[in-house]
Amino acid sequence: MSSRPPVIILNEPQLAENIGAVARVMANFGLSELRLVRPRDGWPQDRAWASASGANWPLDGAKVFETLGEAIADLSLVMATTARPRETQLPVLTPRQAADDLHARVAAGQAVGILFGGERAGLETQDIALCQAIVTIPVDERFRSLNLAQAVALNAYEWRLGVDEGPRQAFSHNALPPADQASMMGLYEQLERELDDAGFFHPPAKRPSMIRNLRVALGKAQMTEQEVRTMRGVVTALSKGRGRVLAKLAAQKAAKEE
Amino acid sequence: MSSRPPVIILNEPQLAENIGAVARVMANFGLSELRLVRPRDGWPQDRAWASASGANWPLDGAKVFETLGEAIADLSLVMATTARPRETQLPVLTPRQAADDLHARVAAGQAVGILFGGERAGLETQDIALCQAIVTIPVDERFRSLNLAQAVALNAYEWRLGVDEGPRQAFSHNALPPADQASMMGLYEQLERELDDAGFFHPPAKRPSMIRNLRVALGKAQMTEQEVRTMRGVVTALSKGRGRVLAKLAAQKAAKEE
Repeated sequence: MSSRPPVIILNEPQLAENIGAVARVMANFGLSELRLVRPRDGWPQDRAWASASGANWPLDGAKVFETLGEAIADLSLVMATTARPRETQLPVLTPRQAADDLHARVAAGQAVGILFGGERAGLETQDIALCQAIVTIPVDERFRSLNLAQAVALNAYEWRLGVDEGPRQAFSHNALPPADQASMMGLYEQLERELDDAGFFHPPAKRPSMIRNLRVALGKAQMTEQEVRTMRGVVTALSKGRGRVLAKLAAQKAAKEE
Repeated sequence: MSSRPPVIILNEPQLAENIGAVARVMANFGLSELRLVRPRDGWPQDRAWASASGANWPLDGAKVFETLGEAIADLSLVMATTARPRETQLPVLTPRQAADDLHARVAAGQAVGILFGGERAGLETQDIALCQAIVTIPVDERFRSLNLAQAVALNAYEWRLGVDEGPRQAFSHNALPPADQASMMGLYEQLERELDDAGFFHPPAKRPSMIRNLRVALGKAQMTEQEVRTMRGVVTALSKGRGRVLAKLAAQKAAKEE
């Protein structure tokens, strides 16, 4: 059974210096796995190493992805950090609560990650919709302006406290682990394809928000791989029904025409 | 009785940018009183304001001292942060324990402070000796290298948690309550009816367990009423597709036969 600490995922980071600062923070708290989604200035960047104060290994091993979906495909649970929790049905956790949950899941052998948005804009709603929980640092309402490495530091620190204090036993994860995000994405995309065919997304301008809402509603269920397969079967059955009706009608027509 | 949050004291800070970054961190966590002991490049420094992201007030009000003794003269308790606790008889606390103690003292009307050393060398033994406790951030032994603003951030965050812990639950109330079981049952029954029509439950002997599994998978999502309505729309769209295909075929047939 693996017990990998959380992966740190930076979505569209802008400054290489900040990526280096994140690596430095990670090293302080025993994290090493770094993933970058569309870093603005490309990758690798010497300036990242220059600002990592010798914490080279998270940078050396950093993986780069074209889409957030690919970056989190193998993870069972991803927490999205944001200063401004949008209206969403996802649970909103403090870094402390998040760390407790992450520890419980890692102890159960699950691969988990924490997602951070870019320096300027943070995370978009559709990025958050791919995650299973939101982490919000309790900053002063009147001045919310932590930099990227500081936000990573606070979450990594809370994770580290759990490592140091020994496992917290408050949670029992006897249940099967949730499916990874690649499986969920497969379900979402199949469902959305069929709903497109069925003319469900109306008016078209609302399609993106309708898709987000659907993904959140289903994502919250933290389905197992088996449950995802079942749900895919459900979607197929409901939509294939059309094919069967089609075939039946065609047969009837053929019979009539003979 | 005063209840001033802790004063942040920087002993011999080197880079003005770091002083600005500390101010920014302080503002995030509701701290405002900053004291500087012998800043290397003098004071004030424009670069501090430039790197504070608008958190000007701790900088505007910053007081400069020639000695640490003067800087902490009016404080009842000062905690010294250091990555390497030296041989000392002072209590060594985590930031969490320190925050608890600071809160207790502030509640009792005491003026308190947290002391941070310069970027390069940290605190000297004689500086620490002026303090009443040591705070050590639990970083990985193999890589101890937090920057100044990050060290301030972790301590300020722990302080803030103590401020916030009461009223912080606002978020959980933002989430809408889950739909009642009658709504969920409506969704289940609609779905199961359509799946019966589509021949999904096969073999028939497995129908009851398949239905249980489906209900568990969806029930875990704790959907809101709105989400239940959306999912019912999804089921209708997927299955109504059949009706549309049927109508289309019928129309084609009619056209052909004319």
